[in-house]
Amino acid sequence: MRIARHGAPGQERPVAAGPDGTWRDLSTVVDDVTPATLARVLALGTDELTALPAAPEPARVGAPVSRPGKVVCIGVNYRAHAAETSHDEPEEPVVFLKTAQTVVGPDDTVLIPRGSTKTDWEVELAVVIGREARYLDSPEAARACVAGYAISNDVSERELQLERGGTWDKGKNCETFNPLGPWLLSADEVTDPQALGLRLWVNGELRQDGSTAQMIFGVDHLVWYLSQVMVLEPGDVVNTGTPAGVALGRPDTPYLRAGDVVELEIDGLGRQRQTMGAA
Amino acid sequence: MRIARHGAPGQERPVAAGPDGTWRDLSTVVDDVTPATLARVLALGTDELTALPAAPEPARVGAPVSRPGKVVCIGVNYRAHAAETSHDEPEEPVVFLKTAQTVVGPDDTVLIPRGSTKTDWEVELAVVIGREARYLDSPEAARACVAGYAISNDVSERELQLERGGTWDKGKNCETFNPLGPWLLSADEVTDPQALGLRLWVNGELRQDGSTAQMIFGVDHLVWYLSQVMVLEPGDVVNTGTPAGVALGRPDTPYLRAGDVVELEIDGLGRQRQTMGAA
Repeated sequence: MRIARHGAPGQERPVAAGPDGTWRDLSTVVDDVTPATLARVLALGTDELTALPAAPEPARVGAPVSRPGKVVCIGVNYRAHAAETSHDEPEEPVVFLKTAQTVVGPDDTVLIPRGSTKTDWEVELAVVIGREARYLDSPEAARACVAGYAISNDVSERELQLERGGTWDKGKNCETFNPLGPWLLSADEVTDPQALGLRLWVNGELRQDGSTAQMIFGVDHLVWYLSQVMVLEPGDVVNTGTPAGVALGRPDTPYLRAGDVVELEIDGLGRQRQTMGAA
Repeated sequence: MRIARHGAPGQERPVAAGPDGTWRDLSTVVDDVTPATLARVLALGTDELTALPAAPEPARVGAPVSRPGKVVCIGVNYRAHAAETSHDEPEEPVVFLKTAQTVVGPDDTVLIPRGSTKTDWEVELAVVIGREARYLDSPEAARACVAGYAISNDVSERELQLERGGTWDKGKNCETFNPLGPWLLSADEVTDPQALGLRLWVNGELRQDGSTAQMIFGVDHLVWYLSQVMVLEPGDVVNTGTPAGVALGRPDTPYLRAGDVVELEIDGLGRQRQTMGAA
């Protein structure tokens, strides 16, 4: 099942698509897709879903979960990206945070912060949590806590992240810095989350072309690991790191400017398209 | 005005106390004190407040705002604390994040994470945001965005924070790691937020005894600064850093163990008392 939210910002309606591919309006089942209602949406059977009215073609797509409780990010989780950014391969997951307030729709405008000359892109597999994860016994126990998967653009301002003191969070939490979607694909439809191709283009030029097979720490390990240091709740999002090909890692550091168009794609998870604007 | 939430976890009732010091039940005015209702509560006049029924003595006090959108933390913001933790004095604010899910009531049990031997305390002045702060023109413009002040215990697990790779966030986001309250004192009642004494005791022994006058970056500067790199929203909390005296900075590093009792106090903002438990 694909789960999404269609409509203007703040007025999104919950929709889902089953095996027939038709988006159905869930408004009679839940008010919205939220951390509180996600379990109900995931429990929809095919018969129940197919009986719902078809949803109209959306003018806009929102993030598939309204206001997740947190966005936990994993840094340096692909070997080639570690190399391009001059990092040693980490011995355990590198963790930082984005606030849920950075989350926008997959095709919304991303705002270049005022004064920024180093805004960068990062295509990432986003894991959406479906069940509380607290001190899980093993990575094997993690899979049952995953609701599904989506695309994240972990937008980053490298000067704020790396040159202005403090932790990476400073360059990761500017407004609009986490496009999410276009949909959440439920975990039962993802045979192997470690075998998904991820791609990102800037102005039509392919910049990132990786596979989740290249992750240093896989999804199960990450969810288990995080559950030892914090409680993951339904609706929480885990950005699992980006493959090589970011602006920071290129000799010409071609950072984003207003007017640039970024497109992202992950196998089975659809496509995002953002135009950069000025804050 | 003092604003608080009294009652069992998840069942807190909104209360406020004006010049007569009596806690009044706000249930007929707002359902709860949340980011969405904070402005309404702050707008209560003394006559309106005094006409409300007195609230009963609470069995438990919750955090004064339900589920803030984010908790932004400032590190190394007192000179003596910078020295005790071997940091240079920062040239600009050091920023990291706690998720709102770490926030608990001022007297709730704080859980020592499993396997932890380095759980530490940090008394801090918490600033609660009352009005959106986005690219503020100046520190002077920041004061109008502050709803008021409260006590935070920015509980920290030093091994996770400093020895396990990644950013500080890993040791700052364990469950129950941010007691907040007992009340929010509205900004109009704080003549000078840079002249408040802060104290913290462990098992009755005074460990921190500072003043917000010792901050490297004051409240106005911090709110203005943060507004350049993220959007602060009503209900958001800013932990402004801790004075000297944490376990990490002492030769005998007397980290917290289950059963220890931590008490915190800031002038005008009341007192917290937490017993450490085991996760």
